[in-house]
Amino acid sequence: MRAVDIILSKRDGRTLARDEIRFFVDGVTDGTLPDYQASALLMAILLRGMTAEETAWLTDAMVHSGVRVDLRDVPGVKVDKHSTGGVGDKTSLILAPLASACGLVVPMMSGRGLGHTGGTLDKLEAIPGFRVGLSLDEMKRALKEVGCAMIGQTAQIAPADKKLYALRDVTGTVESIPLISASIMSKKIAEGIDALVLDVKTGSGAFMKTERASRRLAESLVSIGNASGVKTEAVITDMDVPLGRAVGNALEVIECLEVLKGRGPQDLTDVSVELTSRMLVLGGAARDRAAADVRVREALRSGAGLERFRRIVEHQGGDLRVVDDYGRLPSAPGRHVIHAPRRGFVTYIDAELVGRASVALGAGRDTVDAAVDLGVGIMIVATEGDSVRAGDPVFELHYRDRAKLAAASEMLSRAMAIGATRPAARRLIVGEVR
Amino acid sequence: MRAVDIILSKRDGRTLARDEIRFFVDGVTDGTLPDYQASALLMAILLRGMTAEETAWLTDAMVHSGVRVDLRDVPGVKVDKHSTGGVGDKTSLILAPLASACGLVVPMMSGRGLGHTGGTLDKLEAIPGFRVGLSLDEMKRALKEVGCAMIGQTAQIAPADKKLYALRDVTGTVESIPLISASIMSKKIAEGIDALVLDVKTGSGAFMKTERASRRLAESLVSIGNASGVKTEAVITDMDVPLGRAVGNALEVIECLEVLKGRGPQDLTDVSVELTSRMLVLGGAARDRAAADVRVREALRSGAGLERFRRIVEHQGGDLRVVDDYGRLPSAPGRHVIHAPRRGFVTYIDAELVGRASVALGAGRDTVDAAVDLGVGIMIVATEGDSVRAGDPVFELHYRDRAKLAAASEMLSRAMAIGATRPAARRLIVGEVR
Repeated sequence: MRAVDIILSKRDGRTLARDEIRFFVDGVTDGTLPDYQASALLMAILLRGMTAEETAWLTDAMVHSGVRVDLRDVPGVKVDKHSTGGVGDKTSLILAPLASACGLVVPMMSGRGLGHTGGTLDKLEAIPGFRVGLSLDEMKRALKEVGCAMIGQTAQIAPADKKLYALRDVTGTVESIPLISASIMSKKIAEGIDALVLDVKTGSGAFMKTERASRRLAESLVSIGNASGVKTEAVITDMDVPLGRAVGNALEVIECLEVLKGRGPQDLTDVSVELTSRMLVLGGAARDRAAADVRVREALRSGAGLERFRRIVEHQGGDLRVVDDYGRLPSAPGRHVIHAPRRGFVTYIDAELVGRASVALGAGRDTVDAAVDLGVGIMIVATEGDSVRAGDPVFELHYRDRAKLAAASEMLSRAMAIGATRPAARRLIVGEVR
Repeated sequence: MRAVDIILSKRDGRTLARDEIRFFVDGVTDGTLPDYQASALLMAILLRGMTAEETAWLTDAMVHSGVRVDLRDVPGVKVDKHSTGGVGDKTSLILAPLASACGLVVPMMSGRGLGHTGGTLDKLEAIPGFRVGLSLDEMKRALKEVGCAMIGQTAQIAPADKKLYALRDVTGTVESIPLISASIMSKKIAEGIDALVLDVKTGSGAFMKTERASRRLAESLVSIGNASGVKTEAVITDMDVPLGRAVGNALEVIECLEVLKGRGPQDLTDVSVELTSRMLVLGGAARDRAAADVRVREALRSGAGLERFRRIVEHQGGDLRVVDDYGRLPSAPGRHVIHAPRRGFVTYIDAELVGRASVALGAGRDTVDAAVDLGVGIMIVATEGDSVRAGDPVFELHYRDRAKLAAASEMLSRAMAIGATRPAARRLIVGEVR
């Protein structure tokens, strides 16, 4: 088999055979396929597409580039959630303990933030001492003892994805539904889970800007998951406006704790409950959505979710005291407020601009190697639907560096719209794919 | 400027700016652009295309990756011919001396054969001692003293093309009209010529299999040449059937000498005269095609073309005696004849299969580094339109190695068609683009 023949096939719009896809992925993994052939094929895949079957084969080959974790000796049903990434999207820190408190086992492997969307690992690392780098054995122990582990991808999980993603990032081949699908699902399938709820974001702050594109991605992901024996469903949720009020790592941890204490923002609470409920039903821990909702709300009300969060932090070496003393989290010394220019209603908060402003402050990274400032961030004091008077605060920036503040402020001043009439309530849950 | 942004532009079907194309070519030339980014862009160009303006910019950037030869101190009008490659296509060895004998200066830089099509340099090297590796200064001296030089591309000519071609060859990005056009024309423009006649082959044995594709390529080439100040026209010629009767390096040299002696095959003579006449008119050495034809036929009849060939061989160090003693050329010891299976007319000789059979014998190369056997080849004893009886020879193979003979014979037995009625005469000149 010659790599150039595989490239020619895809270039000319033909369907690749399973062994051709395997040859490509194996060559990328062991380094025998030169990067210049891999990138030509990636571009041909992006422009010519892949059938659902090819995408499933690609995913399978990527899973087999590493270890598919065997969690059969961990009692219970293993369910995870994956989000395609958004601004202020912090539901993982809420739903992992909640789902675990409701009886599921949650082996959650997450990534770091890149570009204007945040990442769960960075948020967890805002908790002093929290170790996200557990080995697979340590993860299993955590699952047995706590019912949940929140860790980073280990090197054994889909190593082909790491190499392919690095190449896609510099060759303009990121935005391909088959490639995105295989990247996401190979890592999730390799976790050894029984079921998976996907949160596919849609809108300005999301990777997929339109509902149509988000639905196509959701369908692709769900189809791959189910084909590989992982019960999978997807919710398409709004990301035109940031989720919750906090954007920035430590600020988001505080907001999650507030939700777990029953006093967080409504939108974040509702989306977290929805996703957790779906995990319960899909994992067989509740007979239907209504029963699941009751159970999840009760875990919130009773503090069982918060208690589970404490146990996760404790087991993974984090400073437990942050739960009650937010002053122990990283923070930034400076505060700067952006005011409403006139009286009216906030009719729009642009999620992408808020995300980019948070990166400008130092809360996120533009390149995989960049350092992140865990203390800086943005509080959205007035969000969509709120009424404001001229001079009322809309954003509060937590900053360390004045030059970065200037760049972020400029973006944020363009990120809000004030109108004369209250906007219609936004649908948080746009659709589902099962 | 970031390479990935240029890739994204082309991927999404946008037109690249002149400085983006220059950035790409400069980066390929000096090695600062990684191969994996170059190959992703090449695939995007292949699948998304390039406008005529982009293709002209690409060509110009490739010319400027090296030296554009200055031939102003060589008296006379400099005219070259370039063929897109065919089977038995040996017109260069005939028309270069003919055009030179008719008063043009011919600075001909050629390539080696690759795949089933032959290359001028290999044929010239069948002449013992013939040096194709002249420096640019040696080429200028040859042009002043002989009026013609037939050499290989020097390293100073369009070095970007050499690197890009090597990458295209292994990444499935050869078959792109903009990329092919820029590759051909950058090398020709860099020669410092005033005018150029292109022979764009069409049919089974050609790179472009259909007249439509050949015409598109011809139009692209002519447009680039004229835009860069080189008067350019193209003839589209038939390559369904090999040109002449000889395929293989030394065998083709003999056939060229026979044409220059006035006793070569009609088809080869006619195409050579046509191309030379066009060179004369384009270079201003004849006022119209009729006058040019008379002059070229006279140079053939008088032996002036043959005499010029002798001077070229002598000046470039070749053994002059081959002109009258073909026994001094390389030859192969074995002969094998493939016979007509039945009585009738030869209705078709498949150029591609004959070309592939000659490569199988060792006359050509499948990879750029492979060695070529200058003595082996195929004589087409009965060609399209000839009548044959059962058992008459159709092909005579000149071989060195029995295993290679077997492979070549198998292909040749499939390369001929014998029918009951004489086929209509083939048009050698299919069209023109000026």
